Amino acid sequence: MPETSLLKKIGIVGGVSWLSTVEYYRIICELSHRNQVDRIPKGPPAVPEMAIESLNINKSFNLRGELGNADSWRDFDGYFRNALERLQNSGAELAIIASNTPHNRFDSITKGIDIPVINIFDVVAQECARLGFKKALILGTAPTMTSPVFPSILAANGITPLLPKSDKDSAAILQLIEKLQADEETVGADIMRTVALASLTRDSIPESIVCLSCTELPLAFPKFLDEPTFKVQGIWYLNTTLVHAKAAFEYAAYR
Amino acid sequence: MPETSLLKKIGIVGGVSWLSTVEYYRIICELSHRNQVDRIPKGPPAVPEMAIESLNINKSFNLRGELGNADSWRDFDGYFRNALERLQNSGAELAIIASNTPHNRFDSITKGIDIPVINIFDVVAQECARLGFKKALILGTAPTMTSPVFPSILAANGITPLLPKSDKDSAAILQLIEKLQADEETVGADIMRTVALASLTRDSIPESIVCLSCTELPLAFPKFLDEPTFKVQGIWYLNTTLVHAKAAFEYAAYR
Repeated sequence: MPETSLLKKIGIVGGVSWLSTVEYYRIICELSHRNQVDRIPKGPPAVPEMAIESLNINKSFNLRGELGNADSWRDFDGYFRNALERLQNSGAELAIIASNTPHNRFDSITKGIDIPVINIFDVVAQECARLGFKKALILGTAPTMTSPVFPSILAANGITPLLPKSDKDSAAILQLIEKLQADEETVGADIMRTVALASLTRDSIPESIVCLSCTELPLAFPKFLDEPTFKVQGIWYLNTTLVHAKAAFEYAAYR
Repeated sequence: MPETSLLKKIGIVGGVSWLSTVEYYRIICELSHRNQVDRIPKGPPAVPEMAIESLNINKSFNLRGELGNADSWRDFDGYFRNALERLQNSGAELAIIASNTPHNRFDSITKGIDIPVINIFDVVAQECARLGFKKALILGTAPTMTSPVFPSILAANGITPLLPKSDKDSAAILQLIEKLQADEETVGADIMRTVALASLTRDSIPESIVCLSCTELPLAFPKFLDEPTFKVQGIWYLNTTLVHAKAAFEYAAYR
Protein backbone atom coordinates (compact mmCIF):
# COMPACT_ATOMS: atom_id res chain seq x y z
CA MET A 1 0.00 0.00 0.00
CA PRO A 2 1.33 3.47 -0.87
CA GLU A 3 2.43 6.09 1.63
CA THR A 4 0.54 9.38 1.76
CA SER A 5 3.42 11.14 0.12
CA LEU A 6 3.34 8.76 -2.83
CA LEU A 7 -0.02 9.97 -4.16
CA LYS A 8 0.79 11.45 -7.56
CA LYS A 9 -0.52 14.89 -8.50
CA ILE A 10 -3.55 14.58 -10.80
CA GLY A 11 -4.30 17.11 -13.54
CA ILE A 12 -7.90 17.56 -14.70
CA VAL A 13 -9.10 19.47 -17.75
CA GLY A 14 -12.61 20.40 -16.62
CA GLY A 15 -15.51 22.79 -17.05
CA VAL A 16 -17.06 20.83 -19.91
CA SER A 17 -19.35 20.86 -18.14
CA TRP A 18 -18.64 22.05 -14.59
CA LEU A 19 -21.19 19.59 -13.17
CA SER A 20 -19.18 16.58 -14.27
CA THR A 21 -15.96 18.23 -13.07
CA VAL A 22 -17.52 18.36 -9.59
CA GLU A 23 -18.31 14.64 -9.90
CA TYR A 24 -14.73 13.77 -10.91
CA TYR A 25 -13.30 15.84 -8.06
CA ARG A 26 -15.77 14.42 -5.50
CA ILE A 27 -15.11 10.82 -6.58
CA ILE A 28 -11.31 11.19 -6.40
CA CYS A 29 -11.49 12.87 -2.97
CA GLU A 30 -13.89 10.27 -1.56
CA LEU A 31 -11.82 7.36 -2.94
CA SER A 32 -8.82 8.94 -1.28
CA HIS A 33 -10.61 9.34 2.06
CA ARG A 34 -11.43 5.63 2.09
CA ASN A 35 -7.92 4.76 0.96
CA GLN A 36 -6.05 7.03 3.39
CA VAL A 37 -8.23 7.28 6.50
CA ASP A 38 -6.54 4.51 8.50
CA ARG A 39 -2.96 5.40 7.68
CA ILE A 40 -2.90 9.03 8.74
CA PRO A 41 -0.87 9.73 11.88
CA LYS A 42 -2.31 13.21 12.44
CA GLY A 43 -4.89 15.48 10.86
CA PRO A 44 -7.52 15.03 8.15
CA PRO A 45 -7.15 12.22 5.56
CA ALA A 46 -4.74 12.96 2.73
CA VAL A 47 -6.13 13.78 -0.71
CA PRO A 48 -3.84 13.86 -3.75
CA GLU A 49 -2.81 17.29 -4.93
CA MET A 50 -4.72 18.20 -8.05
CA ALA A 51 -4.52 20.93 -10.68
CA ILE A 52 -7.75 21.66 -12.51
CA GLU A 53 -7.97 23.77 -15.66
CA SER A 54 -11.66 24.59 -15.98
CA LEU A 55 -12.43 25.73 -19.53
CA ASN A 56 -15.28 27.92 -20.79
CA ILE A 57 -17.81 25.43 -22.21
CA ASN A 58 -19.34 28.07 -24.46
CA LYS A 59 -15.96 28.58 -26.12
CA SER A 60 -15.20 24.85 -26.52
CA PHE A 61 -18.71 24.25 -27.92
CA ASN A 62 -18.30 26.99 -30.52
CA LEU A 63 -14.81 25.75 -31.48
CA ARG A 64 -16.14 22.30 -32.48
CA GLY A 65 -15.30 21.36 -36.08
CA GLU A 66 -17.03 19.19 -38.65
CA LEU A 67 -17.10 15.42 -38.82
CA GLY A 68 -14.39 14.09 -41.14
CA ASN A 69 -12.64 17.47 -41.49
CA ALA A 70 -9.58 17.28 -39.22
CA ASP A 71 -8.42 20.83 -40.05
CA SER A 72 -11.70 22.29 -38.80
CA TRP A 73 -10.88 20.99 -35.28
CA ARG A 74 -7.51 22.76 -34.99
CA ASP A 75 -8.63 25.50 -32.59
CA PHE A 76 -10.71 23.08 -30.52
CA ASP A 77 -7.72 20.73 -30.18
CA GLY A 78 -5.43 23.63 -29.28
CA TYR A 79 -7.80 24.87 -26.56
CA PHE A 80 -7.58 21.49 -24.82
CA ARG A 81 -3.87 20.91 -25.57
CA ASN A 82 -2.92 24.25 -24.03
CA ALA A 83 -4.86 23.33 -20.89
CA LEU A 84 -2.94 20.03 -20.65
CA GLU A 85 0.32 21.95 -21.07
CA ARG A 86 -0.61 24.25 -18.19
CA LEU A 87 -1.40 21.22 -15.99
CA GLN A 88 1.94 19.68 -16.88
CA ASN A 89 3.72 22.96 -16.05
CA SER A 90 1.88 23.00 -12.69
CA GLY A 91 3.45 19.67 -11.77
CA ALA A 92 0.65 17.23 -12.63
CA GLU A 93 2.13 13.72 -13.00
CA LEU A 94 -0.85 12.34 -14.93
CA ALA A 95 -3.90 13.99 -16.47
CA ILE A 96 -7.48 13.31 -17.45
CA ILE A 97 -9.91 15.27 -19.60
CA ALA A 98 -13.19 15.27 -17.64
CA SER A 99 -15.45 14.94 -20.67
CA ASN A 100 -16.06 12.32 -23.37
CA THR A 101 -16.40 14.68 -26.36
CA PRO A 102 -12.75 15.83 -26.60
CA HIS A 103 -11.66 12.17 -26.62
CA ASN A 104 -12.86 12.01 -30.22
CA ARG A 105 -9.82 14.26 -30.89
CA PHE A 106 -7.55 12.55 -28.32
CA ASP A 107 -4.50 11.88 -30.53
CA SER A 108 -4.31 15.46 -31.78
CA ILE A 109 -5.05 17.01 -28.37
CA THR A 110 -2.36 15.01 -26.55
CA LYS A 111 0.34 15.53 -29.19
CA GLY A 112 3.53 16.71 -27.46
CA ILE A 113 2.18 16.20 -23.94
CA ASP A 114 4.78 14.36 -21.85
CA ILE A 115 2.70 13.15 -18.90
CA PRO A 116 0.31 10.17 -19.27
CA VAL A 117 -3.25 11.20 -20.19
CA ILE A 118 -5.73 8.47 -19.25
CA ASN A 119 -8.21 8.03 -22.10
CA ILE A 120 -11.86 7.59 -21.05
CA PHE A 121 -12.71 5.53 -24.15
CA ASP A 122 -9.87 3.07 -23.40
CA VAL A 123 -10.77 2.52 -19.74
CA VAL A 124 -14.51 2.24 -20.50
CA ALA A 125 -13.97 -0.29 -23.33
CA GLN A 126 -11.64 -2.30 -21.07
CA GLU A 127 -14.22 -2.26 -18.26
CA CYS A 128 -16.99 -3.48 -20.63
CA ALA A 129 -14.73 -6.36 -21.75
CA ARG A 130 -13.66 -7.22 -18.19
CA LEU A 131 -17.32 -7.51 -17.16
CA GLY A 132 -18.04 -9.84 -20.10
CA PHE A 133 -20.41 -7.65 -22.10
CA LYS A 134 -20.58 -8.33 -25.86
CA LYS A 135 -22.29 -5.16 -27.07
CA ALA A 136 -22.20 -1.52 -25.96
CA LEU A 137 -24.71 1.19 -26.86
CA ILE A 138 -23.03 4.61 -27.06
CA LEU A 139 -25.09 7.56 -25.77
CA GLY A 140 -23.33 10.92 -25.83
CA THR A 141 -22.90 14.26 -27.55
CA ALA A 142 -23.11 14.64 -31.35
CA PRO A 143 -19.35 14.16 -31.88
CA THR A 144 -19.32 11.01 -29.72
CA MET A 145 -22.31 9.47 -31.50
CA THR A 146 -21.01 10.23 -35.02
CA SER A 147 -17.20 9.90 -34.83
CA PRO A 148 -15.69 6.44 -35.52
CA VAL A 149 -13.19 6.78 -32.65
CA PHE A 150 -15.05 5.19 -29.71
CA PRO A 151 -16.71 2.46 -31.84
CA SER A 152 -13.27 1.38 -33.10
CA ILE A 153 -11.82 1.29 -29.54
CA LEU A 154 -14.78 -0.84 -28.40
CA ALA A 155 -14.30 -3.18 -31.39
CA ALA A 156 -10.58 -3.49 -30.60
CA ASN A 157 -11.60 -4.71 -27.13
CA GLY A 158 -13.98 -7.33 -28.58
CA ILE A 159 -17.17 -5.33 -27.98
CA THR A 160 -19.71 -4.67 -30.75
CA PRO A 161 -20.47 -0.91 -30.76
CA LEU A 162 -24.10 0.18 -31.19
CA LEU A 163 -25.61 3.63 -31.73
CA PRO A 164 -29.17 4.96 -31.38
CA LYS A 165 -31.33 3.49 -34.19
CA SER A 166 -32.97 6.70 -35.38
CA ASP A 167 -32.16 10.41 -35.69
CA LYS A 168 -35.12 11.08 -33.40
CA ASP A 169 -33.50 8.96 -30.67
CA SER A 170 -30.15 10.72 -31.10
CA ALA A 171 -31.91 14.08 -30.89
CA ALA A 172 -33.64 13.05 -27.65
CA ILE A 173 -30.24 12.25 -26.09
CA LEU A 174 -28.74 15.57 -27.21
CA GLN A 175 -31.68 17.46 -25.72
CA LEU A 176 -31.33 15.54 -22.47
CA ILE A 177 -27.61 16.44 -22.21
CA GLU A 178 -28.46 20.11 -22.70
CA LYS A 179 -30.93 19.96 -19.81
CA LEU A 180 -28.52 18.13 -17.53
CA GLN A 181 -25.80 20.70 -18.28
CA ALA A 182 -28.22 23.45 -17.32
CA ASP A 183 -28.83 21.57 -14.04
CA GLU A 184 -32.55 21.25 -14.83
CA GLU A 185 -34.68 18.43 -13.48
CA THR A 186 -35.41 15.81 -16.08
CA VAL A 187 -36.89 12.40 -16.74
CA GLY A 188 -33.56 11.36 -18.22
CA ALA A 189 -33.68 7.75 -17.05
CA ASP A 190 -36.95 7.14 -18.98
CA ILE A 191 -35.60 8.77 -22.15
CA MET A 192 -32.48 6.61 -22.11
CA ARG A 193 -34.51 3.45 -21.47
CA THR A 194 -36.72 4.19 -24.48
CA VAL A 195 -33.68 4.79 -26.72
CA ALA A 196 -31.99 1.63 -25.41
CA LEU A 197 -35.04 -0.57 -26.02
CA ALA A 198 -35.30 0.77 -29.60
CA SER A 199 -31.60 0.13 -30.27
CA LEU A 200 -31.09 -3.29 -28.66
CA THR A 201 -32.79 -6.51 -29.75
CA ARG A 202 -34.65 -8.23 -26.91
CA ASP A 203 -32.26 -11.21 -27.03
CA SER A 204 -29.16 -9.05 -26.78
CA ILE A 205 -30.23 -7.05 -23.70
CA PRO A 206 -28.53 -9.30 -21.09
CA GLU A 207 -25.16 -9.18 -22.92
CA SER A 208 -25.36 -5.44 -23.69
CA ILE A 209 -24.47 -2.37 -21.66
CA VAL A 210 -25.47 1.25 -22.23
CA CYS A 211 -22.39 3.50 -22.01
CA LEU A 212 -23.35 6.87 -20.52
CA SER A 213 -20.66 8.42 -22.71
CA CYS A 214 -21.25 12.01 -21.84
CA THR A 215 -20.12 12.77 -18.31
CA GLU A 216 -23.44 14.46 -17.51
CA LEU A 217 -25.65 11.48 -18.40
CA PRO A 218 -24.98 9.61 -15.10
CA LEU A 219 -26.55 12.61 -13.30
CA ALA A 220 -29.92 11.33 -14.60
CA PHE A 221 -29.49 8.36 -12.22
CA PRO A 222 -28.86 10.17 -8.91
CA LYS A 223 -29.30 6.96 -6.85
CA PHE A 224 -26.42 5.24 -8.65
CA LEU A 225 -23.77 7.98 -8.71
CA ASP A 226 -21.33 5.78 -6.78
CA GLU A 227 -21.86 2.60 -8.88
CA PRO A 228 -19.52 2.14 -11.89
CA THR A 229 -22.18 -0.13 -13.47
CA PHE A 230 -25.80 -0.65 -12.45
CA LYS A 231 -28.98 -2.32 -13.70
CA VAL A 232 -32.32 -0.48 -13.95
CA GLN A 233 -35.44 -2.34 -15.12
CA GLY A 234 -33.35 -5.07 -16.74
CA ILE A 235 -30.91 -2.79 -18.60
CA TRP A 236 -27.24 -2.42 -17.65
CA TYR A 237 -25.64 1.06 -17.62
CA LEU A 238 -22.02 2.18 -17.24
CA ASN A 239 -21.10 5.47 -15.53
CA THR A 240 -18.14 6.66 -17.62
CA THR A 241 -17.36 9.51 -15.18
CA LEU A 242 -16.88 7.10 -12.29
CA VAL A 243 -14.89 4.51 -14.26
CA HIS A 244 -12.59 7.25 -15.57
CA ALA A 245 -12.12 9.05 -12.22
CA LYS A 246 -11.42 5.72 -10.49
CA ALA A 247 -8.76 4.85 -13.09
CA ALA A 248 -7.09 8.23 -12.44
CA PHE A 249 -7.10 7.76 -8.65
CA GLU A 250 -5.70 4.22 -8.94
CA TYR A 251 -2.93 5.49 -11.20
CA ALA A 252 -2.13 8.25 -8.69
CA ALA A 253 -2.11 5.84 -5.76
CA TYR A 254 -0.59 2.63 -7.13
CA ARG A 255 1.47 3.25 -10.30
CA MET B 1 -22.79 44.57 -18.96
CA PRO B 2 -19.65 42.66 -19.89
CA GLU B 3 -19.18 40.52 -22.98
CA THR B 4 -18.59 36.80 -22.52
CA SER B 5 -14.99 37.19 -23.52
CA LEU B 6 -14.41 39.76 -20.79
CA LEU B 7 -14.81 37.29 -17.93
CA LYS B 8 -11.41 37.22 -16.25
CA LYS B 9 -9.75 33.90 -15.46
CA ILE B 10 -10.16 33.06 -11.76
CA GLY B 11 -7.49 31.16 -9.80
CA ILE B 12 -8.54 29.16 -6.74
CA VAL B 13 -6.27 27.60 -4.13
CA GLY B 14 -8.47 24.76 -2.92
CA GLY B 15 -8.60 21.36 -1.28
CA VAL B 16 -8.65 22.79 2.27
CA SER B 17 -11.08 21.16 2.42
CA TRP B 18 -12.30 19.79 -0.91
CA LEU B 19 -15.94 20.17 0.18
CA SER B 20 -15.68 23.93 0.36
CA THR B 21 -13.77 24.01 -2.94
CA VAL B 22 -16.80 22.33 -4.54
CA GLU B 23 -18.99 25.05 -3.01
CA TYR B 24 -16.80 27.88 -4.36
CA TYR B 25 -16.74 26.31 -7.83
CA ARG B 26 -20.49 25.63 -7.85
CA ILE B 27 -21.32 29.16 -6.68
CA ILE B 28 -19.11 30.82 -9.33
CA CYS B 29 -20.53 28.61 -12.11
CA GLU B 30 -24.14 29.20 -11.06
CA LEU B 31 -23.62 32.97 -10.74
CA SER B 32 -22.15 32.89 -14.24
CA HIS B 33 -25.11 30.91 -15.64
CA ARG B 34 -27.52 33.51 -14.32
CA ASN B 35 -25.28 36.34 -15.56
CA GLN B 36 -24.62 34.93 -19.03
CA VAL B 37 -27.68 32.92 -20.00
CA ASP B 38 -29.46 35.66 -21.95
CA ARG B 39 -26.44 36.98 -23.83
CA ILE B 40 -25.18 33.79 -25.43
CA PRO B 41 -25.65 33.61 -29.20
CA LYS B 42 -25.01 29.87 -29.45
CA GLY B 43 -24.27 26.99 -27.10
CA PRO B 44 -24.26 26.56 -23.32
CA PRO B 45 -23.87 29.61 -21.05
CA ALA B 46 -20.30 30.87 -20.65
CA VAL B 47 -18.46 30.20 -17.40
CA PRO B 48 -15.19 31.99 -16.63
CA GLU B 49 -12.05 29.95 -17.16
CA MET B 50 -10.65 28.86 -13.82
CA ALA B 51 -7.44 27.30 -12.60
CA ILE B 52 -7.70 25.39 -9.34
CA GLU B 53 -4.72 24.21 -7.32
CA SER B 54 -6.15 21.67 -4.90
CA LEU B 55 -3.71 21.08 -2.03
CA ASN B 56 -3.38 18.06 0.27
CA ILE B 57 -5.19 19.09 3.46
CA ASN B 58 -3.23 16.59 5.53
CA LYS B 59 -0.01 18.31 4.49
CA SER B 60 -1.28 21.85 5.09
CA PHE B 61 -2.67 20.81 8.50
CA ASN B 62 0.64 19.34 9.58
CA LEU B 63 2.56 22.40 8.33
CA ARG B 64 0.64 24.76 10.64
CA GLY B 65 2.92 26.75 12.96
CA GLU B 66 2.44 28.18 16.44
CA LEU B 67 0.53 31.30 17.42
CA GLY B 68 2.84 34.31 17.71
CA ASN B 69 5.83 32.51 16.12
CA ALA B 70 6.00 33.78 12.53
CA ASP B 71 9.03 31.64 11.65
CA SER B 72 7.15 28.45 12.48
CA TRP B 73 4.69 29.18 9.64
CA ARG B 74 7.34 29.44 6.90
CA ASP B 75 6.63 26.08 5.26
CA PHE B 76 2.85 26.54 5.57
CA ASP B 77 3.09 29.97 3.93
CA GLY B 78 5.32 28.59 1.16
CA TYR B 79 2.91 25.74 0.40
CA PHE B 80 0.15 28.27 -0.32
CA ARG B 81 2.41 30.86 -1.99
CA ASN B 82 3.72 28.26 -4.46
CA ALA B 83 0.13 27.32 -5.34
CA LEU B 84 -0.66 31.00 -6.03
CA GLU B 85 2.45 31.23 -8.22
CA ARG B 86 1.31 28.22 -10.26
CA LEU B 87 -2.15 29.83 -10.71
CA GLN B 88 -0.49 33.05 -11.86
CA ASN B 89 1.68 31.09 -14.31
CA SER B 90 -1.46 29.39 -15.64
CA GLY B 91 -2.93 32.75 -16.60
CA ALA B 92 -5.23 33.47 -13.65
CA GLU B 93 -6.00 37.21 -13.56
CA LEU B 94 -7.18 37.19 -9.94
CA ALA B 95 -7.04 34.58 -7.21
CA ILE B 96 -8.79 33.46 -4.07
CA ILE B 97 -7.76 31.04 -1.34
CA ALA B 98 -10.85 28.90 -0.70
CA SER B 99 -10.37 28.64 3.06
CA ASN B 100 -10.36 31.05 6.01
CA THR B 101 -7.41 29.57 7.92
CA PRO B 102 -4.58 30.59 5.53
CA HIS B 103 -5.90 34.18 5.63
CA ASN B 104 -4.36 34.46 9.09
CA ARG B 105 -1.04 34.34 7.16
CA PHE B 106 -2.30 36.39 4.17
CA ASP B 107 0.48 39.02 4.00
CA SER B 108 3.26 36.45 4.03
CA ILE B 109 1.48 34.04 1.65
CA THR B 110 0.78 36.70 -0.98
CA LYS B 111 4.28 38.26 -0.85
CA GLY B 112 5.56 38.62 -4.42
CA ILE B 113 2.29 37.55 -6.06
CA ASP B 114 1.46 39.99 -8.86
CA ILE B 115 -2.23 39.24 -9.45
CA PRO B 116 -4.89 40.53 -7.03
CA VAL B 117 -5.76 38.02 -4.30
CA ILE B 118 -9.20 38.75 -2.83
CA ASN B 119 -9.01 38.44 0.97
CA ILE B 120 -11.97 36.65 2.62
CA PHE B 121 -11.54 38.57 5.90
CA ASP B 122 -11.73 41.92 4.04
CA VAL B 123 -14.86 41.11 2.04
CA VAL B 124 -16.62 39.54 5.05
CA ALA B 125 -15.84 42.52 7.32
CA GLN B 126 -17.04 44.91 4.59
CA GLU B 127 -20.26 42.91 4.17
CA CYS B 128 -20.94 42.99 7.94
CA ALA B 129 -20.47 46.77 7.94
CA ARG B 130 -22.60 47.27 4.80
CA LEU B 131 -25.46 45.36 6.45
CA GLY B 132 -25.22 47.54 9.57
CA PHE B 133 -24.12 44.93 12.10
CA LYS B 134 -22.17 46.23 15.12
CA LYS B 135 -20.69 42.97 16.45
CA ALA B 136 -19.44 39.79 14.80
CA LEU B 137 -18.84 36.45 16.50
CA ILE B 138 -15.97 34.55 14.84
CA LEU B 139 -16.39 30.76 14.58
CA GLY B 140 -13.59 28.93 12.76
CA THR B 141 -10.50 26.77 13.06
CA ALA B 142 -8.00 27.17 15.91
CA PRO B 143 -5.79 29.65 13.99
CA THR B 144 -8.82 31.78 13.05
CA MET B 145 -10.18 31.87 16.62
CA THR B 146 -6.80 32.69 18.21
CA SER B 147 -4.96 34.93 15.71
CA PRO B 148 -5.48 38.72 16.00
CA VAL B 149 -5.74 39.13 12.19
CA PHE B 150 -9.50 38.82 11.57
CA PRO B 151 -10.51 40.67 14.77
CA SER B 152 -8.33 43.62 13.72
CA ILE B 153 -9.84 43.69 10.20
CA LEU B 154 -13.35 43.65 11.70
CA ALA B 155 -12.40 46.47 14.10
CA ALA B 156 -10.98 48.52 11.21
CA ASN B 157 -14.41 48.23 9.57
CA GLY B 158 -16.21 49.46 12.71
CA ILE B 159 -17.32 46.00 13.89
CA THR B 160 -16.63 44.73 17.40
CA PRO B 161 -15.07 41.24 17.11
CA LEU B 162 -16.27 38.53 19.51
CA LEU B 163 -14.94 35.02 20.14
CA PRO B 164 -16.48 31.99 21.89
CA LYS B 165 -16.66 32.68 25.64
CA SER B 166 -15.14 29.43 26.89
CA ASP B 167 -12.54 26.87 25.84
CA LYS B 168 -15.32 24.28 25.90
CA ASP B 169 -17.26 26.27 23.29
CA SER B 170 -14.18 26.66 21.08
CA ALA B 171 -13.52 22.93 21.34
CA ALA B 172 -17.11 22.18 20.26
CA ILE B 173 -16.62 24.27 17.11
CA LEU B 174 -13.31 22.56 16.26
CA GLN B 175 -14.92 19.14 16.66
CA LEU B 176 -17.82 20.20 14.43
CA ILE B 177 -15.41 21.35 11.67
CA GLU B 178 -13.64 17.99 11.80
CA LYS B 179 -16.97 16.19 11.28
CA LEU B 180 -18.03 18.47 8.43
CA GLN B 181 -14.67 17.95 6.69
CA ALA B 182 -15.22 14.19 6.93
CA ASP B 183 -18.64 14.73 5.32
CA GLU B 184 -20.39 13.22 8.35
CA GLU B 185 -23.92 14.13 9.33
CA THR B 186 -24.04 16.47 12.28
CA VAL B 187 -26.23 18.64 14.43
CA GLY B 188 -23.98 21.56 13.62
CA ALA B 189 -26.69 24.20 13.61
CA ASP B 190 -27.61 23.42 17.25
CA ILE B 191 -23.98 23.47 18.37
CA MET B 192 -23.41 26.89 16.79
CA ARG B 193 -26.61 28.28 18.31
CA THR B 194 -25.52 27.16 21.79
CA VAL B 195 -22.08 28.74 21.36
CA ALA B 196 -23.62 31.95 20.00
CA LEU B 197 -26.09 32.29 22.87
CA ALA B 198 -23.26 31.83 25.37
CA SER B 199 -21.11 34.45 23.65
CA LEU B 200 -23.63 37.21 22.89
CA THR B 201 -25.60 39.17 25.44
CA ARG B 202 -29.36 39.01 24.89
CA ASP B 203 -29.51 42.75 24.11
CA SER B 204 -26.82 42.53 21.45
CA ILE B 205 -28.31 39.64 19.44
CA PRO B 206 -30.20 41.82 16.92
CA GLU B 207 -27.09 43.88 16.06
CA SER B 208 -24.73 40.87 15.97
CA ILE B 209 -23.89 38.36 13.26
CA VAL B 210 -22.19 34.98 13.55
CA CYS B 211 -19.41 34.71 10.93
CA LEU B 212 -19.14 31.09 9.74
CA SER B 213 -15.41 31.71 9.29
CA CYS B 214 -14.41 28.25 8.26
CA THR B 215 -15.62 27.46 4.78
CA GLU B 216 -17.12 24.14 5.94
CA LEU B 217 -19.36 25.64 8.66
CA PRO B 218 -22.07 26.81 6.19
CA LEU B 219 -22.53 23.13 5.23
CA ALA B 220 -24.26 22.69 8.59
CA PHE B 221 -27.11 24.84 7.22
CA PRO B 222 -27.92 22.96 3.97
CA LYS B 223 -31.15 24.93 3.41
CA PHE B 224 -29.31 28.25 3.27
CA LEU B 225 -26.33 27.42 1.04
CA ASP B 226 -27.36 30.09 -1.47
CA GLU B 227 -27.97 32.87 1.10
CA PRO B 228 -24.99 35.14 1.92
CA THR B 229 -26.67 35.95 5.27
CA PHE B 230 -29.63 34.26 6.95
CA LYS B 231 -31.50 34.23 10.25
CA VAL B 232 -32.25 31.03 12.18
CA GLN B 233 -34.23 31.17 15.45
CA GLY B 234 -33.47 34.87 15.88
CA ILE B 235 -29.71 34.67 15.22
CA TRP B 236 -28.03 36.09 12.08
CA TYR B 237 -25.33 34.06 10.30
CA LEU B 238 -22.95 34.96 7.45
CA ASN B 239 -21.79 32.35 4.90
CA THR B 240 -18.18 33.37 4.29
CA THR B 241 -17.80 30.91 1.38
CA LEU B 242 -20.64 32.53 -0.54
CA VAL B 243 -19.62 36.14 0.20
CA HIS B 244 -16.05 35.37 -0.89
CA ALA B 245 -16.97 33.41 -4.05
CA LYS B 246 -19.42 36.14 -5.06
CA ALA B 247 -16.73 38.81 -4.66
CA ALA B 248 -14.44 36.77 -6.94
CA PHE B 249 -17.10 36.34 -9.63
CA GLU B 250 -17.98 40.03 -9.54
CA TYR B 251 -14.33 40.95 -9.91
CA ALA B 252 -14.02 38.56 -12.87
CA ALA B 253 -17.16 39.94 -14.53
CA TYR B 254 -17.11 43.65 -13.80
CA ARG B 255 -13.61 44.90 -12.88
